[in-house]
Amino acid sequence: MTESMIETIAARARKASRPLVSLSTVQKNRALAAMAYHLRSRAEELKVGNAKDLKQARTNNLSPAMIDRLTLSDKVIEGMARALEEIAELPDPVGKIENMTRRPNGLTVGKMRIPLGVVAIIYESRPNVTSDAAGLCLKSGNAVILRGGSEAFNSNRAVVKVLKSALEESGISPDVIGFIPVTDREAINEMLALEQYIDLVIPRGGEGLIRTVVENSRIPVLKHYKGVCHIFVDREADLDKAYKICLNAKVQRPGVCNAMETLLVDAPVADTFLPEMIRLLRENGVEIRGCEKTRGIVDHVAPAAESDWSEEFLDLILAVKVTDSMQEAIDHIEEYGSDHTEAIITENHSRAMEFLRDVDSSTVLINASTRFSDGGEFGLGAEVGICTSRIHAYGPMGIEDLTIGKFVCFGDGQIRT
Amino acid sequence: MTESMIETIAARARKASRPLVSLSTVQKNRALAAMAYHLRSRAEELKVGNAKDLKQARTNNLSPAMIDRLTLSDKVIEGMARALEEIAELPDPVGKIENMTRRPNGLTVGKMRIPLGVVAIIYESRPNVTSDAAGLCLKSGNAVILRGGSEAFNSNRAVVKVLKSALEESGISPDVIGFIPVTDREAINEMLALEQYIDLVIPRGGEGLIRTVVENSRIPVLKHYKGVCHIFVDREADLDKAYKICLNAKVQRPGVCNAMETLLVDAPVADTFLPEMIRLLRENGVEIRGCEKTRGIVDHVAPAAESDWSEEFLDLILAVKVTDSMQEAIDHIEEYGSDHTEAIITENHSRAMEFLRDVDSSTVLINASTRFSDGGEFGLGAEVGICTSRIHAYGPMGIEDLTIGKFVCFGDGQIRT
Repeated sequence: MTESMIETIAARARKASRPLVSLSTVQKNRALAAMAYHLRSRAEELKVGNAKDLKQARTNNLSPAMIDRLTLSDKVIEGMARALEEIAELPDPVGKIENMTRRPNGLTVGKMRIPLGVVAIIYESRPNVTSDAAGLCLKSGNAVILRGGSEAFNSNRAVVKVLKSALEESGISPDVIGFIPVTDREAINEMLALEQYIDLVIPRGGEGLIRTVVENSRIPVLKHYKGVCHIFVDREADLDKAYKICLNAKVQRPGVCNAMETLLVDAPVADTFLPEMIRLLRENGVEIRGCEKTRGIVDHVAPAAESDWSEEFLDLILAVKVTDSMQEAIDHIEEYGSDHTEAIITENHSRAMEFLRDVDSSTVLINASTRFSDGGEFGLGAEVGICTSRIHAYGPMGIEDLTIGKFVCFGDGQIRT
Repeated sequence: MTESMIETIAARARKASRPLVSLSTVQKNRALAAMAYHLRSRAEELKVGNAKDLKQARTNNLSPAMIDRLTLSDKVIEGMARALEEIAELPDPVGKIENMTRRPNGLTVGKMRIPLGVVAIIYESRPNVTSDAAGLCLKSGNAVILRGGSEAFNSNRAVVKVLKSALEESGISPDVIGFIPVTDREAINEMLALEQYIDLVIPRGGEGLIRTVVENSRIPVLKHYKGVCHIFVDREADLDKAYKICLNAKVQRPGVCNAMETLLVDAPVADTFLPEMIRLLRENGVEIRGCEKTRGIVDHVAPAAESDWSEEFLDLILAVKVTDSMQEAIDHIEEYGSDHTEAIITENHSRAMEFLRDVDSSTVLINASTRFSDGGEFGLGAEVGICTSRIHAYGPMGIEDLTIGKFVCFGDGQIRT
């Protein structure tokens, strides 16, 4: 039973995805506006679904933080509606023709952006991902198949119901939003085998969920496991910039993937830089775990364990290492990093450009906080996710990353000789 | 034993791939020139290896066509050397920075092209793929792992040996070319699990090989299964262009994936167009298999079986169908096509643009032969392969498709607020 049901949802999404490519931007934006309108006007209905999940969450003794993430308050619902309106304001990536060139035989060749087709999104607790994902996929001309976490099941189902009626009202098949109405892992695995219907899978959640998806999927997966972000303070750094940037990267929002987890300090400036830097960090509640050299410079620093160098703390904890050269820092990033985001602080142009070239993480910054590694900050609009494998996309993904270029050729009778 | 050996090759390729990103274009081009020089100057050595394969091929009663593809004649070796020199002449995709924009906070953000890392290429008989693949990967800054067909094993090994010594002479680690020295399927499967070392797999060969790779790989795979290419002759076609283009698409080289396999004819012009078209095709040795309407218009046409509509004939055989509308033709392509290449012949601008928009194959042409769907013809230089799944690349791939953009950010002290 379950088997055929999931296949039916995917097959319907595939079929419904076809006409999306020819929708005008205006049609898509009107549908997004209708989706926002319905979320606001049917807020009570969403709260009824949400109340079931909250009741279950309390029975299961979920943490207050989890319950907070799960709650569909008026403010959260307004945020979801507003996010859809912001997606409507983004430029439409579909139909854009790039790199148009004329070949010697007169054939004009370019690449036109088209939707990927059907995108499956697997996520954990927050119900606002449901409307965000549906909106981002619609704007980029894709059908979406949503599989949220079991804790938010009733909330997600209520959101999807509301969004589907907005689509229907806008003359778009409600099948472009597929909702997997079961929450067991088997259902995920079955979905991950449907390569004939689904073009891309984006898992959003903890490392465990993502590894399970990668191991079981026959469909391409865009993902990042974790963000172990580094800042390297070079011997020619402007130390005032370094204090300010490192503090920002660690404490402005420590629980996110683009926060700094390891600070690398070039030996010639370590004696000058580290005492003040660590004082500032400690003043902001940061616990320091250092290498032997760090511990020789600053008092009361706990020794960093080998495992600390590859740890995503997501907390007010920082690993600190003094390196003898920039090369040693780059090698450290290569060995322990996660290909997410790294920064160098230096006033030396050649050293900055060398770091930029030789560090192959998905985002590399010169003299700026790692916290900028974000779709919104980079001007991509709402973020679809972050990808740290070097296929299709690398780094923060915007809606253009939910499209691909097909070759389009304008001829007037050319044949090949 | 075999197990650790394959892992060792992959781990070495990974390690050797790291310094490739900082090689200058001049260094890479010199290495490519050295590779070409060594192939020419050590042609006798290549022929010794090749002779072993040819002897085995005769023992195994391989077809003359297979033996011909396997033979390393002077002409083939010169072609391999020349191909490497042509790769040297291609623009270097690595280091190019695209879409550089300034954000409101003064942070300048762009995307810099970097190599993927390690690319595994799994291919069948032709030994020239060995040097082509090695050259394309080197130019794009990637290490390569080669796994050729068993029939060409000794030839491939000889080619790799020569190329490795050219690399060593050029100061590049010979480990950037990995060669799997066994030909069993187990070795492929073992390689396909090494996601920690290999970034991308490109299988080149028959549908069976490709399906095996896709089913067993935990690494992203770029592939196309087959090319069932269509031409739609619209009611407003210039019929003279249509005769010329259809004939070219079918007979100029029928054994390749961008040859036309199905001709779709709009009903209003079928009576006028088909008799002369089929006469021309038959004059060139083409066997016609038609729908009922086609058979009603032209005599002695064999009925097309249902399976003919999705068949890649790779031969002088053509399926012909009359459709009542362009929409019917588009639906037919959607149902039976392979997302490879389709063309419309029409003088009507609106209909041409509608076809271009609504057909989501990787190449769509207006008034030109499907045979143009090729990296070289599109100006990409040597072709790395063709991809018909809408992830990473779609259509013919050039060396730029062996790179990915990382975000690079130039700041002067920006922090996030």
